[in-house]
Amino acid sequence: MTSAFEQLQKQLKQLPGLGYRSSERIALHLLVEKPARLPELVAALEAAARTVRRCSRCGHLAEAELCPICADEKRDRTLICVVEHVPDLVAIERSGAYKGVYHVLHGKLSPLHGVGPADLNLASLWTRLETGEVRELILALPNDVEGEATCHYLTEHLPAGGQVTTTRIGFGLPSGGGVLYADSVTLKSALEGRRGYQ
Amino acid sequence: MTSAFEQLQKQLKQLPGLGYRSSERIALHLLVEKPARLPELVAALEAAARTVRRCSRCGHLAEAELCPICADEKRDRTLICVVEHVPDLVAIERSGAYKGVYHVLHGKLSPLHGVGPADLNLASLWTRLETGEVRELILALPNDVEGEATCHYLTEHLPAGGQVTTTRIGFGLPSGGGVLYADSVTLKSALEGRRGYQ
Repeated sequence: MTSAFEQLQKQLKQLPGLGYRSSERIALHLLVEKPARLPELVAALEAAARTVRRCSRCGHLAEAELCPICADEKRDRTLICVVEHVPDLVAIERSGAYKGVYHVLHGKLSPLHGVGPADLNLASLWTRLETGEVRELILALPNDVEGEATCHYLTEHLPAGGQVTTTRIGFGLPSGGGVLYADSVTLKSALEGRRGYQ
Repeated sequence: MTSAFEQLQKQLKQLPGLGYRSSERIALHLLVEKPARLPELVAALEAAARTVRRCSRCGHLAEAELCPICADEKRDRTLICVVEHVPDLVAIERSGAYKGVYHVLHGKLSPLHGVGPADLNLASLWTRLETGEVRELILALPNDVEGEATCHYLTEHLPAGGQVTTTRIGFGLPSGGGVLYADSVTLKSALEGRRGYQ
């Protein structure tokens, strides 16, 4: 193979979900089968890199000062859902189950990996909470060690005098999944998260 | 989501093997997680688009007049393996089982889809055969209707007076696959392609 082809394949292989074969297939597709798509893809990549930035309020992807969710008057601003990364937000949006706003931390506290509070998108969260209009802070962070530490840190450092209730999303069996197939940590969470029935 | 993001996702989704979720994941990866990779990917795409072209002899990808295989003195030039597309060539190269050279037709005859002999990379194949140095033409084309028609056309139109033997790659059970799991067309090919044992 030619070296420019190998370079392209190497770049594609670094993308999540692509391995040796799939990156080769995409490179051949762009160079041999549909060469007209290559400049279109380059243009889309460059346009996205140029225009997409962080929402100054919540940290989500935005093309203006605010992201479409923060700019949407119909979203409930008394409800903030705290997530680790943008894909988490996208997953919750896709469920259609949430009408509040978000706050993306872009990470979680991890002393082992040298991630402290200053590395997270926290300053604008405190500013939002200090306005006093937030009623509930939903922590949609994972229940691993770093997620627990981040939840703990957030509840300990809430602005004084605020009326914010802090909640955590539920952990348990995935919908449609039976007890038989669940791992023991999930079963433990499911038992701990049991609720009164009728 | 922002519109530049959606445009990028749409472009990625058109690539082979990528669906809605995987293209979203890659777009978020390039914009949020590893933004430094985006310009590298753009550069690799542009470099490949600029430098990669067709080998003037065999039709494979090349960065010079000839592809690395045609330019390689150690390959057996008396043996030409005819394939439909570049990925077929790549798959045969990966097997390491072939030391001859190739000829990529960039398609197969298909009157139904309006693909005639003039649409295939045939002119340079006739030139190669007319030199008289080719001993064997291995047809590595699929055994569907179009593949059969293309094989038939090639054998019918070989340059007169040449000493070229035409062969077809074997069809049958995939290595490691048992009779139990093979579809009936494959079993038919395997029976037709039986050979003397010992």
